[in-house]
Amino acid sequence: MVEVVLKANLETIEAQISELQSKKAQLESLLEDIYFQQRLAQKAVIAKNITVIGGAGKLGSLFVRVLTQLGHNVSVFETQDWPNAEALLTNQDCVIVSVPINLTLSLIEKVAQIISPDTVLADLTSIKVKPLQAMLSAHAGPVIGLHPMFGPDVADIEDQVIAYSEGRNTRACQWLLDDLSILNPTLYPVSAENHDKAMAFIQVMRHFSTFVYGVHLKDEDPCLRELIAMSSPIYRLELAMIGRLFAQDSQLYADIIFSNPDNFELLKRFQQRYQSGIELLESGNKELFKQSFADVNLWFGEFAEHFLEESRCLLEAAHQYRVK
Amino acid sequence: MVEVVLKANLETIEAQISELQSKKAQLESLLEDIYFQQRLAQKAVIAKNITVIGGAGKLGSLFVRVLTQLGHNVSVFETQDWPNAEALLTNQDCVIVSVPINLTLSLIEKVAQIISPDTVLADLTSIKVKPLQAMLSAHAGPVIGLHPMFGPDVADIEDQVIAYSEGRNTRACQWLLDDLSILNPTLYPVSAENHDKAMAFIQVMRHFSTFVYGVHLKDEDPCLRELIAMSSPIYRLELAMIGRLFAQDSQLYADIIFSNPDNFELLKRFQQRYQSGIELLESGNKELFKQSFADVNLWFGEFAEHFLEESRCLLEAAHQYRVK
Repeated sequence: MVEVVLKANLETIEAQISELQSKKAQLESLLEDIYFQQRLAQKAVIAKNITVIGGAGKLGSLFVRVLTQLGHNVSVFETQDWPNAEALLTNQDCVIVSVPINLTLSLIEKVAQIISPDTVLADLTSIKVKPLQAMLSAHAGPVIGLHPMFGPDVADIEDQVIAYSEGRNTRACQWLLDDLSILNPTLYPVSAENHDKAMAFIQVMRHFSTFVYGVHLKDEDPCLRELIAMSSPIYRLELAMIGRLFAQDSQLYADIIFSNPDNFELLKRFQQRYQSGIELLESGNKELFKQSFADVNLWFGEFAEHFLEESRCLLEAAHQYRVK
Repeated sequence: MVEVVLKANLETIEAQISELQSKKAQLESLLEDIYFQQRLAQKAVIAKNITVIGGAGKLGSLFVRVLTQLGHNVSVFETQDWPNAEALLTNQDCVIVSVPINLTLSLIEKVAQIISPDTVLADLTSIKVKPLQAMLSAHAGPVIGLHPMFGPDVADIEDQVIAYSEGRNTRACQWLLDDLSILNPTLYPVSAENHDKAMAFIQVMRHFSTFVYGVHLKDEDPCLRELIAMSSPIYRLELAMIGRLFAQDSQLYADIIFSNPDNFELLKRFQQRYQSGIELLESGNKELFKQSFADVNLWFGEFAEHFLEESRCLLEAAHQYRVK
């Protein structure tokens, strides 16, 4: 009897919470809109003519949406528009290149022949050294490289990181950064070289290691269901991080991983360290292992504890999202 | 003005939600207790005398708490109790060994000399073949191996996985499994051999690869702050998963990784596949890469999509838990 009453109470409370939460979401969205309008009024955006090449693609269309929201006149340029390229690409204030990596360099050369000398030329490629070099050598006007550090499935760019590398005449590109900042992303300035070095870790090493781990699992062929059934929350997360890669577009990952042969050296050094690690295991020297462990702890500094705390919250959340 | 009203409304709603959520938590806890009492009444636990060796440790004390909650008479046995071992360990219905891996085998031998022939001997070690062999050869009575697949910081064992491997006379151990099941864990039966093979992936490979990645980062020495600043949500998660290891006890991980030299072969095969992967990159053969990618996708089957969906929810949650 008590149980029935408690269950009814619980259901009522859950319904109330759900109703309040949707009200809350409405209010937040209204407030966000007010704040956005306030920032928009303060910064007084001057409407520019912007063309996004590849603007029908996933990432391109996100930028079309965002720049339109800011009050710019944004045009989409796709493959079928090349016959009218002269008319469409001249007299633009800004042309943004958002095409797959393997097409970027040749496209930049083609585009630079057409655009006006004072057009801001920008790209959204996930590497920065080569596209920036290509833009600087093919175009005499203002140049800036952008790299949005998020997938195209985000709702908006608020709180998301956009790395940018200066090319030429940054003052002439500043309006683009200023206007984007109205939407509250984190704009992160970084040299193209440092950007690409960081990406060697963040993208190339990560995706390549995940790829090899997937191949390893397939070749070892353990029972996946049994592995999942016995997974600790953290290993389940790891399995999910591996499995998710292979549900995606292999061309995209091939392009990222093969993009820069300079990165292969980093992978080779990892492989050598993996081998040294195995030799350490075979020597049975636990003290040396613990010394290495302590050295890495020191390298991570305060972040080791931060990450432990962060992942603790996250693993609790992960437990709820499990696919049963 | 509108803004002020909206903000006040939002605060009111947030307070209401927070109040309702704490009411909800109270109700849920009451209901859980009722369900627990119902299951307890149905199963009619017969109070047994249980000693947990290492019961003052993290995992041991969790089991002391859980078994006491079920109505058993649970004693803690620690190093200082050895002088009274005869008195404390004989005539127990069950003795559970919960000590660090590197002490488990010798401790089992010592304990088995003392306990009564019909005592259920169990262990909580994260490997199963060797402890089970040790228990079977040193003790003539009922034997069962348990491996709780979670850290000792969980609030309770509901929904958590406990793998178990049968040793001898499982019927005489059944009450222990039945009683634990009152608390709604997932009890997962698995042979000691299959358990250890799965753990080679779930623990040894995972922890070892993370260790090597940490060493790699330390030796390459990129700017960690810059890496974090530019991380996509998924790479931030990876960094957190690496960093968290090094905030923990190196002895524990040394023990797990060094525990079984048979596992080193698995690591070597991974290393060989890593090398083959690098050779594939150097050959520039993207088509072969994409073919491998497709093969692994096939191996993951429906789980590839499941994991993508699961990680999508999780990455949204992760975005909130970031340490800024």
